[in-house]
Amino acid sequence: MAAAERMVVIGGDATGMSAAAQARRLKGPGELEIVAFERGRFSSYSACGIPYWVGGQVTERDSLVARSPEEHRSRGIDLRMRTEAVELDVPGQRVRVTEQEGTERWVGYDQLVLATGAVPVRPPLPGIDAEGVHGVQTLDDGQRLLDALERGHLPHGVRGRVESGGASPRRAVVVGAGYIGVEMAEAFVRRGYQVTVLEKAEQPMSTLDPDMGELVHEAMCSMDIETVLGASVTEVRTDERGRACAVATQDAEYPADVVVLGLGVRPATELAREAGLPLGESGGLLTDLAMRVRGQDNIWAGGDCVEVLNLVSGRPQHVPLGTHANKHGQVIGANIGGGYATFPGVVGTAVSKVCDLEIARTGLLEAQAAAVGLRFTSVVIESTTRAGYYPGTRPIHVKMLAERRSGRLLGVQIVGRENAGKRVDIAAVALHAGMTVEQMTSLDLGYAPPFSPVWDPVLIAARKAAAAVREG
Amino acid sequence: MAAAERMVVIGGDATGMSAAAQARRLKGPGELEIVAFERGRFSSYSACGIPYWVGGQVTERDSLVARSPEEHRSRGIDLRMRTEAVELDVPGQRVRVTEQEGTERWVGYDQLVLATGAVPVRPPLPGIDAEGVHGVQTLDDGQRLLDALERGHLPHGVRGRVESGGASPRRAVVVGAGYIGVEMAEAFVRRGYQVTVLEKAEQPMSTLDPDMGELVHEAMCSMDIETVLGASVTEVRTDERGRACAVATQDAEYPADVVVLGLGVRPATELAREAGLPLGESGGLLTDLAMRVRGQDNIWAGGDCVEVLNLVSGRPQHVPLGTHANKHGQVIGANIGGGYATFPGVVGTAVSKVCDLEIARTGLLEAQAAAVGLRFTSVVIESTTRAGYYPGTRPIHVKMLAERRSGRLLGVQIVGRENAGKRVDIAAVALHAGMTVEQMTSLDLGYAPPFSPVWDPVLIAARKAAAAVREG
Repeated sequence: MAAAERMVVIGGDATGMSAAAQARRLKGPGELEIVAFERGRFSSYSACGIPYWVGGQVTERDSLVARSPEEHRSRGIDLRMRTEAVELDVPGQRVRVTEQEGTERWVGYDQLVLATGAVPVRPPLPGIDAEGVHGVQTLDDGQRLLDALERGHLPHGVRGRVESGGASPRRAVVVGAGYIGVEMAEAFVRRGYQVTVLEKAEQPMSTLDPDMGELVHEAMCSMDIETVLGASVTEVRTDERGRACAVATQDAEYPADVVVLGLGVRPATELAREAGLPLGESGGLLTDLAMRVRGQDNIWAGGDCVEVLNLVSGRPQHVPLGTHANKHGQVIGANIGGGYATFPGVVGTAVSKVCDLEIARTGLLEAQAAAVGLRFTSVVIESTTRAGYYPGTRPIHVKMLAERRSGRLLGVQIVGRENAGKRVDIAAVALHAGMTVEQMTSLDLGYAPPFSPVWDPVLIAARKAAAAVREG
Repeated sequence: MAAAERMVVIGGDATGMSAAAQARRLKGPGELEIVAFERGRFSSYSACGIPYWVGGQVTERDSLVARSPEEHRSRGIDLRMRTEAVELDVPGQRVRVTEQEGTERWVGYDQLVLATGAVPVRPPLPGIDAEGVHGVQTLDDGQRLLDALERGHLPHGVRGRVESGGASPRRAVVVGAGYIGVEMAEAFVRRGYQVTVLEKAEQPMSTLDPDMGELVHEAMCSMDIETVLGASVTEVRTDERGRACAVATQDAEYPADVVVLGLGVRPATELAREAGLPLGESGGLLTDLAMRVRGQDNIWAGGDCVEVLNLVSGRPQHVPLGTHANKHGQVIGANIGGGYATFPGVVGTAVSKVCDLEIARTGLLEAQAAAVGLRFTSVVIESTTRAGYYPGTRPIHVKMLAERRSGRLLGVQIVGRENAGKRVDIAAVALHAGMTVEQMTSLDLGYAPPFSPVWDPVLIAARKAAAAVREG
């Protein structure tokens, strides 16, 4: 009997462990040995849940862990925690790993899965690495932030004020007003902090067009989240003990008891780059539809370390989202396990919230559409989430982009209150199907007064967009 | 200059008045005269809102009226209230109408819109027309019911008990456990009534498969709604003053202070039938895709009085829903106004709720699929509406039917709690697009912990259905 093949997985979160679990379902230990390396202390956790853990909606760290190392091991996956892959030898089909205690060794593979994720963008500014400046990318990051908040490490001056009985709230400065930034802003509002968000662009949520971003800006202001736009951070100031105490921009200084970086992430692909594997413009690995690294027979990659095809723009793109990472893992595991699966691409869907404001988008923004040569018409409508007379009905704005002439849907953006955000799924499916906005006007969507106005807001937008297309 | 064409509309609710308003937008009074007849006292109202008005969530009757007769008139539509069309002379292109005071006259038309709606099914049982037995199809019906509840007309025996200080709650018996039935059950629960729902079938919500209906049954029981299945109503018992006081079935009697009929509706097409216009099996008018009555040049019909094409079964079907009625009106108005629009058909989407239980469906049930010759596989999954660790996450069951071999999606049914129901829209769009369940597994749906688990419940169902299709 032939020796079992060995599948080596680098990265113990969504993609890596989904791939391992799916492959294990299809092939037993006699056929396939599975070894996985994770440099952190946690496996298969929800990084997307960290803002809600910091905000207190989630009280148990372990509830963010979908499957612990022990559970993986009990399913026949040899998961080695706190073990880092430091070199990849593609011709030799082996990976060099460093264990926690410093031991180094080479591990050979027949099939390799690169699931190394992403790292937060940390601009090289003075003070950026000081104590009190936090990323929130990994569960370890979240734990460090919560430990710091609970220890109550405050800069000297503030501590003095608190000790003298002053009621000044603590101050959080969040750098960046993207998804992570606004979610962390909400978390600190919930903790009673005075929150300032510093954003370099002229709008929060640059995943939206400026007009829709302005709606988010207005809402954040009404939530007492100080949102400073056009703010270029120049330095994190530190106190005499070396702890962050303020964030300076080109023209102001914002005192801070805690600083959180929400500047987005970039693919963690140093290992792959050094091994000569193909990377895209964002630095993400390039794969085929089966999630195999281009040009490689037995190296697979998925999750936050790859680029995916945007089916609307036709361009590869870095889209670090847990939902894609899980799908990639399933696809890789199915293929290594002898099955067949593909990941055709994304349409650019994302949904988030800040306090009770829901923010969603799918497809292309105006600038993205223009950048790939598309001409389009766009409309914005305002409606309600339920029938106008039904209690709890809330406002919703829907922006819709359609290609000129063809009328093909190109994108939808939604800003509204409760029950607004997930309506983006209607447009996401329509994008996958290549529908025109005219076709969308006759979609048979669920209607009853507690769920929707008799014309769902997406239908209202489609009607207006279809009329705009007809008018040329 | 030629005299203006005359558009005559029969029925002043969603279809009729949408058609009138849309035609008026496209053609001014000099080109098109618009006359509309409504036999009731209200125009353009939301019949779907009546259960919430009875239940007290909606307090103002007028908030259910989207546009009053005066508003229509101010827009150049000659709307005659309490005027009934009693005869249609197709060769003569005229309609005989009876006004409230008894005046009769013939009105000629160039374009006729039949928007006569539907009438509640009222089986010919003893006592069914007694005082205290209510339909809830029109705003007039709703007003009569509320007046009766507020007058507190109770049968003699019960009145005695209440007067003697007894705390017995009033009792409502709802006949029929479809959408209207369960919504009215909720309304009476909210009013503090003891509620009994009598349903002839062996499940509530026969718009669902039996297994999904059973989930609704269990939930209704836990809401203290007595739900009697297999109950064939034989008689409405009346007291000595002729008022309904109980509902009798084949083997029991249910005392009632008020009786509501929720047995569904049938198309109100007597006028059309007598005029020889083509009707389908349900009695609904048959139209083409532009909503023109088949074989007629200048007669249009839409809303609850027509049959529509079910795009999944390929069969015409009676689907009395406000959302279709409004679309039909738009289509008819656009075509009469010189524009162009069609209504391609429905996929059978509906959503409702009883208390906090959300119930939704789209596409075909198992029995419906079998009846049109489709072979299918079906799966049921249980998941949650938000990430498992996120507060307010609630259970959701999703059933998915896929055609054997092709894997084409045939239908989805959802029973769950808050935020479950509108997920049916994902499947509705996929049905319009003719997607396979395999294609659905890679849909890029909105994910963030407050909105969905990392695998949306619809994706989980699609994965399971795709696996079932592969297994044959």
